[in-house]
Amino acid sequence: MNADPSARSLPAAPVLAVDAMGGDHGPAEVVAGVALALAKGDLNARVLLVGDQPTLEKLLVENKLRGDPRVEIVHASQVIGMDEKPVAALKNKKDSSMVRAIELVKEGRAQGVLSLGNTGALMAGGTLKLRPMPGLERPALATIIPSRGHRFVLIDAGANPDAEPIHLLHNALLGSHYARCILKLPQPRVGLLSIGTEEGKGSEKVLAAHALLKDVNGLLNYTGPVEGFQLFRGEVDVVVCDGFTGNILLKALESCFDMLKSFLKDQLMANPVRQAGAWLSRGAYAAVKRELNPEALSGAPLLGLNRLVIKTHGSSTRAYVAGAVRVALATLEYDLTGAIRADLEKLAEAKKPEAPKVAAGA
Amino acid sequence: MNADPSARSLPAAPVLAVDAMGGDHGPAEVVAGVALALAKGDLNARVLLVGDQPTLEKLLVENKLRGDPRVEIVHASQVIGMDEKPVAALKNKKDSSMVRAIELVKEGRAQGVLSLGNTGALMAGGTLKLRPMPGLERPALATIIPSRGHRFVLIDAGANPDAEPIHLLHNALLGSHYARCILKLPQPRVGLLSIGTEEGKGSEKVLAAHALLKDVNGLLNYTGPVEGFQLFRGEVDVVVCDGFTGNILLKALESCFDMLKSFLKDQLMANPVRQAGAWLSRGAYAAVKRELNPEALSGAPLLGLNRLVIKTHGSSTRAYVAGAVRVALATLEYDLTGAIRADLEKLAEAKKPEAPKVAAGA
Repeated sequence: MNADPSARSLPAAPVLAVDAMGGDHGPAEVVAGVALALAKGDLNARVLLVGDQPTLEKLLVENKLRGDPRVEIVHASQVIGMDEKPVAALKNKKDSSMVRAIELVKEGRAQGVLSLGNTGALMAGGTLKLRPMPGLERPALATIIPSRGHRFVLIDAGANPDAEPIHLLHNALLGSHYARCILKLPQPRVGLLSIGTEEGKGSEKVLAAHALLKDVNGLLNYTGPVEGFQLFRGEVDVVVCDGFTGNILLKALESCFDMLKSFLKDQLMANPVRQAGAWLSRGAYAAVKRELNPEALSGAPLLGLNRLVIKTHGSSTRAYVAGAVRVALATLEYDLTGAIRADLEKLAEAKKPEAPKVAAGA
Repeated sequence: MNADPSARSLPAAPVLAVDAMGGDHGPAEVVAGVALALAKGDLNARVLLVGDQPTLEKLLVENKLRGDPRVEIVHASQVIGMDEKPVAALKNKKDSSMVRAIELVKEGRAQGVLSLGNTGALMAGGTLKLRPMPGLERPALATIIPSRGHRFVLIDAGANPDAEPIHLLHNALLGSHYARCILKLPQPRVGLLSIGTEEGKGSEKVLAAHALLKDVNGLLNYTGPVEGFQLFRGEVDVVVCDGFTGNILLKALESCFDMLKSFLKDQLMANPVRQAGAWLSRGAYAAVKRELNPEALSGAPLLGLNRLVIKTHGSSTRAYVAGAVRVALATLEYDLTGAIRADLEKLAEAKKPEAPKVAAGA
């Protein structure tokens, strides 16, 4: 019933529960993605595939995973649709693949859950069943935004739209550990998303968060506010914001990128001369696409819960599912939740013996 | 001393005060831009060039504008630098080109002011000297974001980071008129930027603004919340947000676009084969650039003041300066401030006889 009491001493092979029924392309793509992730020999992990047993058994055969000791099916009879209202869906579909997958984590049979399904339901279900860590009120969704020769963590990408300053401080801690774990940066530079870098510029909330962040520089490498125009210049590794700004930013950037891609493609195909040119320079397009849409970085964890919950795009194809599985397993190996818990304890410690402050000018 | 009492009956030729000393490229580029705008024969307007007289006289000669009755120099001995603190600069540089240009509008010698200079100083100076209109607390910066085959107004792009719900309603009115005036849309579709389109999703502030906007549908064509991923799909013509979100979004999009452009360019130049391909398909790049970086749409007005204040990028070259001059003049011809004033009066009217509301379920 209880979650594993000590996340610090993970078993040799971490176990990931995968909601196999979510996503736009259905279970075939999810299982194929898991197979792709497991095909790389270095992977020390087990996967619980949660969903309709007959369907999944058939897919295991197709993907040559039948009998593989690293994969196990856990039956669930229902599926939460992408457009269902999260809270109602969680209540009415207790035997859905998503709810069952989350419960496997709660019961300690898995250390983390991965889903391509309904984001709202996953965030609400994860938060309700796995609970925020002690000392943290609101979990945050972390995502990695690729740039040229650089990547940064954007946190929060949509979990907590009305974040208070203290939540932004927590986001900074969460995002730093995620950058250490996935981007392999020992001291990630943390910036607070704002609209001016001079002292006193920004929204009231962000100015209050800036004051908090300056105060805990032992716990993280806070470099100050960052503006929108700095994001793609490789100046910061973690960009901290509330879930409202982050979600709009992420979706607008994706939408802008898609628009540009299809616009340029149509222009390149508009006549035979341009087509020939595009063929000659196809290597350039491939290089840009590889760098800016990396399969290896799919998956966005909802950080700050007692256990790992990781979401990946509903439209993910098998290569992206495989990337998300590997991100999830890397996160478990790093013991991200344990590292965050330790930081929250240090933060509570630091705040306890509140030194009396002398008023300025006294 | 007083501004023209009736903005409704504009003189035949609107007068624009141009801060000729602001911008990264200095007065030569500004004057050349003005010359370019005036070179098109259809322009019925006069320009007051504000700045250092000897410098500007020389530039008039160079641009074959000497003796042109449409251009007049107004001397100002100081320049506000791009990095100066706005309030201190306004206080200490009373004879700066920017302050003088704003004062020409206040005195009624011009109907609007255009500057490439320090954005903070222009917004603060414009607000202090030209004042928000009656019934409106906070002006908002409107900018046009180009997309494929479509453009939309983003408002507020950075003037009011802590906007209240009522300010968002005002932004919707301001942005609608700007879209009518510049995008020539009789009934622009107005969307409220949010993180979900279902009832109840979004930040508290945005939910309150949504309720206000639904209530005034006679004054504008409100279509509901829009998410980041919808921005580049041509679904809305006016995107309403606070100045914090809008500024971050605008700058991040510009920064992302610049990164993509230089990344792709370097990849295309990486070897002779790709170079040849790029040369053959150069028409495609030119078409994309023309559509997404249109000179004709530069200039962002600070809307909601009694007179027009318009800012354009400090890095604008002459073609973009010319575009901004023409946007400013189109705005004066439409009588944007008069139209906004009329809407604010209608809004105040509609709110006055508050009908007693029966509680739901009573």
